[in-house]
Amino acid sequence: MKGIDGFKLLSTLGEDGRLTVELAQESIASPQGHDVLIRVEAAPINPSDLGLLFGPADLAGADYGEGRIVAQMPEPARRAMATRIGQPMAIGNEGAGTVIAAGEAPEAQALLGKRVACVPGGMFAQYRLVDARQCMALPEGVTAEQGAAAFVNPLTALGFVETMRREGHSAIVHTAAASNLGQMLVRIAQEDNIPLVNIVRSEAQVQMLKALGAAHVLDSSSETFATDLIAAIEATGATIAFDAIGGGKLVSQILTAMEQVAARDAAYSRYGSDKPKQAYIYGALDLSPTILTRNYGFSWNVGGWLLFPFLARAGEDVTSRMRQRVFANLTTTFASPYKARISLRDVLGRETALAYNARRTGEKYLIVPN
Amino acid sequence: MKGIDGFKLLSTLGEDGRLTVELAQESIASPQGHDVLIRVEAAPINPSDLGLLFGPADLAGADYGEGRIVAQMPEPARRAMATRIGQPMAIGNEGAGTVIAAGEAPEAQALLGKRVACVPGGMFAQYRLVDARQCMALPEGVTAEQGAAAFVNPLTALGFVETMRREGHSAIVHTAAASNLGQMLVRIAQEDNIPLVNIVRSEAQVQMLKALGAAHVLDSSSETFATDLIAAIEATGATIAFDAIGGGKLVSQILTAMEQVAARDAAYSRYGSDKPKQAYIYGALDLSPTILTRNYGFSWNVGGWLLFPFLARAGEDVTSRMRQRVFANLTTTFASPYKARISLRDVLGRETALAYNARRTGEKYLIVPN
Repeated sequence: MKGIDGFKLLSTLGEDGRLTVELAQESIASPQGHDVLIRVEAAPINPSDLGLLFGPADLAGADYGEGRIVAQMPEPARRAMATRIGQPMAIGNEGAGTVIAAGEAPEAQALLGKRVACVPGGMFAQYRLVDARQCMALPEGVTAEQGAAAFVNPLTALGFVETMRREGHSAIVHTAAASNLGQMLVRIAQEDNIPLVNIVRSEAQVQMLKALGAAHVLDSSSETFATDLIAAIEATGATIAFDAIGGGKLVSQILTAMEQVAARDAAYSRYGSDKPKQAYIYGALDLSPTILTRNYGFSWNVGGWLLFPFLARAGEDVTSRMRQRVFANLTTTFASPYKARISLRDVLGRETALAYNARRTGEKYLIVPN
Repeated sequence: MKGIDGFKLLSTLGEDGRLTVELAQESIASPQGHDVLIRVEAAPINPSDLGLLFGPADLAGADYGEGRIVAQMPEPARRAMATRIGQPMAIGNEGAGTVIAAGEAPEAQALLGKRVACVPGGMFAQYRLVDARQCMALPEGVTAEQGAAAFVNPLTALGFVETMRREGHSAIVHTAAASNLGQMLVRIAQEDNIPLVNIVRSEAQVQMLKALGAAHVLDSSSETFATDLIAAIEATGATIAFDAIGGGKLVSQILTAMEQVAARDAAYSRYGSDKPKQAYIYGALDLSPTILTRNYGFSWNVGGWLLFPFLARAGEDVTSRMRQRVFANLTTTFASPYKARISLRDVLGRETALAYNARRTGEKYLIVPN
């Protein structure tokens, strides 16, 4: 074949802070060498995609035209994004589709006609050229929808467990735990026998995770949350937390509870206990500052956690083992339910955009570009 | 000899939140085995001692009696200190003095009559029984005053450099840099050729550090601080910071500046640069919360740093090398100037207590207990 024309979604920030998100037509040349051409059949909208797509731009006050959104980026964010100004950014970390053309390399030819999943970026598009070595063929009988989210959430959830083990902890605290990722983590923790403290934000979410069989589910809006948290940390021995929220005092509250449990059995030290306490922030559901009260001595650590740097540090053996576990369990442990399937054009509609950009727990959207 | 009577300082927190700091008489038995009996000649009041001595107790409103201070501990602090309630705590991390009696072990006998320095705790006392293996004999001609602060500040400053190297950084940002510790770090950085960004809080402190030969000294109260900080981080390549302040936004501001420098040369990523950025909080001059704005991607880390856990991790070889460097340079690189010499009884006087507890930069007090 001679290449193909298709639409893709682009997000461009102007010097004046105007963010334009639009559908652009592109002509993709016939694949060469190791490349394959994928007809994208499903791509999930992950929170990490929304950061690049809109960031903190004002979507409620935006201008919704024909196939285009123009929104204003707040000035501090515009300055922080100086290096993306003027560059059209392709969106969509991951997705799945069918290989409709392939370069001459054997790795590429082997995938011709196959349904594959990949995480190359730019998957909010009808077609995408990808290196075959970055693609994984989906198991027989797995649909594109079932394989679309095979990387970001599954590898992140497995990455938490891997990080816990590498850093010498034996139980995990997870916040925003009712999320798609949080539900996966509940299933992984059950399979691997890892004590897990799930923190959610409503009684309905407590019931949802308990229905999945989660043993420790705490509602941070409850009046008894502070004491519930200490009890759950005592019961599990958790000394590492993964937090999707970022802003506010929750991370600090978790470290405080860990320290209170650690200090119970130790002699008084004005420096606090020497039990290492780790919190990783991997999301930014709340963009406000993280408030650390530091009433937990000096043996604590708060840092950013990001999937790809983690995988790079973990190395190919570990990454490959994690990937294989995901692909063998795509329709069970690592299944993602979706609230709605939308087209590329739907992405630009006002109501739809406001809905998926709200990042509501359990309301994940799937783009079906063709 | 048959043992000896002397006074020591004790700090006791009651269940009701009343903190009593007083002189108590004790009888010390004649040393046995590896122990030596030290007549304490000089012990510095370090910020770390003040935490155990008073913590956040209300010294201004305290009751100053004969040889005793009774102050109220705020309720949150009282709760955090539950494990010290009812226990008289001996104070004073480090000091120097003369060995006036020794156990029968050769290591102890070898120190008899010698002037030694040590960091056993409880040095705000006239006499102290210490394991000889924890003492270091002071070099010929070094006074007790010169050797009194041979551990905490010198090893902390050297520990920063060691941590920098171990974690793959090549330059340091230091806050509250006009402190005694900060001045040592300036001298160490000069000797070891390590680029150092010193952040201080007044123009007078800028001049003081510049007079020591420091190349990068920034005044955080200056209007140009934000841009000065970026320029200094760019000039030095610093990606690790040590912060004595703890509260407020300074740590976050340093990480922001590091990220801005890192992002200049990188393609835009909505996750920020992948340059690791580390800040360690080793003090608490400001007890208010640490505010992290997180506008520096996900490759960052903020944690507590404490000398003794660091030394334990670094191991005996490294610790011994650091100690030898200190003892060889006690009157030069690692010299500590003092604002005043005070007796054990002076420690309990209202004006003196309010003065040394203010932790003013450059105003270090030395206790001379005999």
